[in-house]
Amino acid sequence: MFKNDIGVIGMAVMGRNLTLNIASHGYTVSIFNRTPQKTEYIIKNFDNKTILPFFSISGFVNSLKKPRCILLMVQSGKATDNIILKLLSYLSSGDIIIDGGNSFYKDTIRRYYNLLKYNVNFIGAGISGGEYGALYGPSIMPGGNKSAYNFIKPILKSIAAKIGNESCISYIGPDGSGHYVKMVHNGIEYADMQLIAESYSMLRHILNLSNQDISDIFSQWNQGELNSYLIKITKNILKKKDSNGNDLIDCILDQADTKGTGEWACKEALELHEPLTLITMSVFSRYISVLKLQRILASNILLGPRNHCIIHNQSEFIEKIRQSLYLGKIISYSQGFSQLSHASQKYHWNLKYSNIAKIFRSGCIIQARFLNKIVEAYKYDNTTMNLLLSPYFQELANKYQNTLRQVVSDSIQYGVAIPVFSSAISYYDSYRTSFSSANLIQAQRDYFGAHTYKRYDQDGVFHTNWSSY
Amino acid sequence: MFKNDIGVIGMAVMGRNLTLNIASHGYTVSIFNRTPQKTEYIIKNFDNKTILPFFSISGFVNSLKKPRCILLMVQSGKATDNIILKLLSYLSSGDIIIDGGNSFYKDTIRRYYNLLKYNVNFIGAGISGGEYGALYGPSIMPGGNKSAYNFIKPILKSIAAKIGNESCISYIGPDGSGHYVKMVHNGIEYADMQLIAESYSMLRHILNLSNQDISDIFSQWNQGELNSYLIKITKNILKKKDSNGNDLIDCILDQADTKGTGEWACKEALELHEPLTLITMSVFSRYISVLKLQRILASNILLGPRNHCIIHNQSEFIEKIRQSLYLGKIISYSQGFSQLSHASQKYHWNLKYSNIAKIFRSGCIIQARFLNKIVEAYKYDNTTMNLLLSPYFQELANKYQNTLRQVVSDSIQYGVAIPVFSSAISYYDSYRTSFSSANLIQAQRDYFGAHTYKRYDQDGVFHTNWSSY
Repeated sequence: MFKNDIGVIGMAVMGRNLTLNIASHGYTVSIFNRTPQKTEYIIKNFDNKTILPFFSISGFVNSLKKPRCILLMVQSGKATDNIILKLLSYLSSGDIIIDGGNSFYKDTIRRYYNLLKYNVNFIGAGISGGEYGALYGPSIMPGGNKSAYNFIKPILKSIAAKIGNESCISYIGPDGSGHYVKMVHNGIEYADMQLIAESYSMLRHILNLSNQDISDIFSQWNQGELNSYLIKITKNILKKKDSNGNDLIDCILDQADTKGTGEWACKEALELHEPLTLITMSVFSRYISVLKLQRILASNILLGPRNHCIIHNQSEFIEKIRQSLYLGKIISYSQGFSQLSHASQKYHWNLKYSNIAKIFRSGCIIQARFLNKIVEAYKYDNTTMNLLLSPYFQELANKYQNTLRQVVSDSIQYGVAIPVFSSAISYYDSYRTSFSSANLIQAQRDYFGAHTYKRYDQDGVFHTNWSSY
Repeated sequence: MFKNDIGVIGMAVMGRNLTLNIASHGYTVSIFNRTPQKTEYIIKNFDNKTILPFFSISGFVNSLKKPRCILLMVQSGKATDNIILKLLSYLSSGDIIIDGGNSFYKDTIRRYYNLLKYNVNFIGAGISGGEYGALYGPSIMPGGNKSAYNFIKPILKSIAAKIGNESCISYIGPDGSGHYVKMVHNGIEYADMQLIAESYSMLRHILNLSNQDISDIFSQWNQGELNSYLIKITKNILKKKDSNGNDLIDCILDQADTKGTGEWACKEALELHEPLTLITMSVFSRYISVLKLQRILASNILLGPRNHCIIHNQSEFIEKIRQSLYLGKIISYSQGFSQLSHASQKYHWNLKYSNIAKIFRSGCIIQARFLNKIVEAYKYDNTTMNLLLSPYFQELANKYQNTLRQVVSDSIQYGVAIPVFSSAISYYDSYRTSFSSANLIQAQRDYFGAHTYKRYDQDGVFHTNWSSY
């Protein structure tokens, strides 16, 4: 009996598109879905003899070459656990399960070690690129056992996005590291989007530009340092008309939803004691956006600035926003990569940050030209503590920091909310402060809770009886 | 055989001081500690015939009047679970365990429902006030079964801090609500401390004032709207000399530690979709403070502003910082109480915010005169969505918002990091924006992920094929 190269479980849009992508590269694919309709839909609509439908787990598993490679594209959480449990009774030693969903990395770690007991290999693979990427080439971040990864590498490499000769896939590290990197990728995506939204806000509310003008500005920005997928789609969004000929952007309700991975990244940062301020403020900004009724109420009650500052030179201010957006982005990536390096130490993952930045360069949502600069920085030194301290980024930060200050300051004076630009300059100044005000906080903690403090001038740990004089 | 009124387990400093506090109010107290030394220390050093030592759990439990009241003052987490498990075999139906530690509210909920199966009442009581408060009167936030609370109320009420005729204790609500309120209290404490530290930073680095001058300023501030325990101790800290006659504050290392409850509050906010920005930025600021080596390195690499702004009128700027500090504080409490109300809805706790603000007025770290204003606001309307929308606070926000803008803007131009003041004005402007830039974020999400969007002008959920023109 002829056996297929790989099986895919879960025929929602991501699973379907990845299946079509794999099949288009000459591999035979068994497919299965919890409900038969989605499987039937594919067989009906995509006449591809290399995609074979199955309606039972046993039939599906038996149709695969050994060691079997099974890609899960089901909902993260319980659905993933359930399907793994069902698969287990049919799998053999050496088989490989690849979880391509947005699983929480701690679940991936748990599943990895649990399946190890059955000699089943588990690869937690972050996959980014949305529907389009799944079909034509996503960015793939696989973590788990390296030899199991090497076995499935040809298939995954063939479907990944390409940049020049390179595929946007690289072995990330052990157990949950692939899904961890995907989580941070998504967090970075939140901050990128929020920084762009705040730039749009300033162009719209401070300079009173039209959507077409703003689209043209983003179009221009996309030619330079800021060149990226998100800038490109922003340019397109701003010139899109609805069926009545109105600017579609003006009809869209200003409430931004979330799907949880941004939130995970922030909670992880809090646990790791990593100051992931830009991403966290981006997540909180979405939460504030959802409070639409409160915002309408507040807009009639809470006053804005008494006197507007006046922007005299429009094109100069546009250029200042561009520089601030670039520096804001750099600060956000510095924080994200610092978190990766912190997690890598904690979990002994030995992450290679230049490889990670490489696979972000195409296929995924945050693909951007400037990622080459991150590749270079970490290629030069994988132990760089913070990107802001590496040559290219420190030079750029020093060039643009004054502009970022002015833009944030102007926008605050103008009453236009720019929470993430603000937290960018706050972080920058906090990070470059050799003497912070945390000495006062330690004194307060020792005063009311006897939590003790350290001194500059003496070793040891001290407690003072503060109320005696 | 004579039986005692209450038992206390855990004779570290908080347990010991609460024991002495209870005994001083005429109750007889059985005490127990995992290791006998701490129990012996108390019996040796505090000759009080109403405190009776026990060295076995069975003896301890048997020494108590029925229904037995047992106050746990042990480490949160496993130690608390362990002692509850040990107690269970000796307890009878109707007995009451009070957990006075800093337990995570989800653990309290779990323990509450678990003990219910054994007909044992569990009260999760947040206790704030540090060592001093434990001895002379803490603020107490008990959650759990109300009739069990009523039974132990006389003892707890007698030991609580007093403000006029009122005791700083009030039944909070079911199961984990008491520990939830304590968690938010601690989060608020983080932001209060950070706002004070940033004020000190501006007075020190922008105005170049001496510690004595700054102490005098805090002393003066303590006479007015800002009157509070934390302002008072800050004033004392800044004038404290070390044994060499130097200002002690200048010798204390600027690395602020954390003990976890602030982090919990932020993670909860992320889960609840509640924008708790000031507290979260305060926690992150402590994390940045810990990166001392990186900060020293960065201070030699990353540049500050090219031109300082000049503060012409020193006393005017001091008053501006005072106003900003007060508004920052108000915004932080608005967020904290909004989170409480969000949690109350989620868990059906039916919290009474005026009662909560009341018990914060004495005994605890965040005790402050302005809490009376919160008491009034929620007494007038317990369903207020956000304190900034209530009469007193909206008036004050409208009076001080322009000043907060100027102070933040000046400090950014000056290069002095004020992350929490910045996030205060960012939140204020985000919250009072009826048209935010989140429409662009929803458009982006729909563009790359088909996540759909809503419209202002039509009902329903929409998806656009963005790349077609």
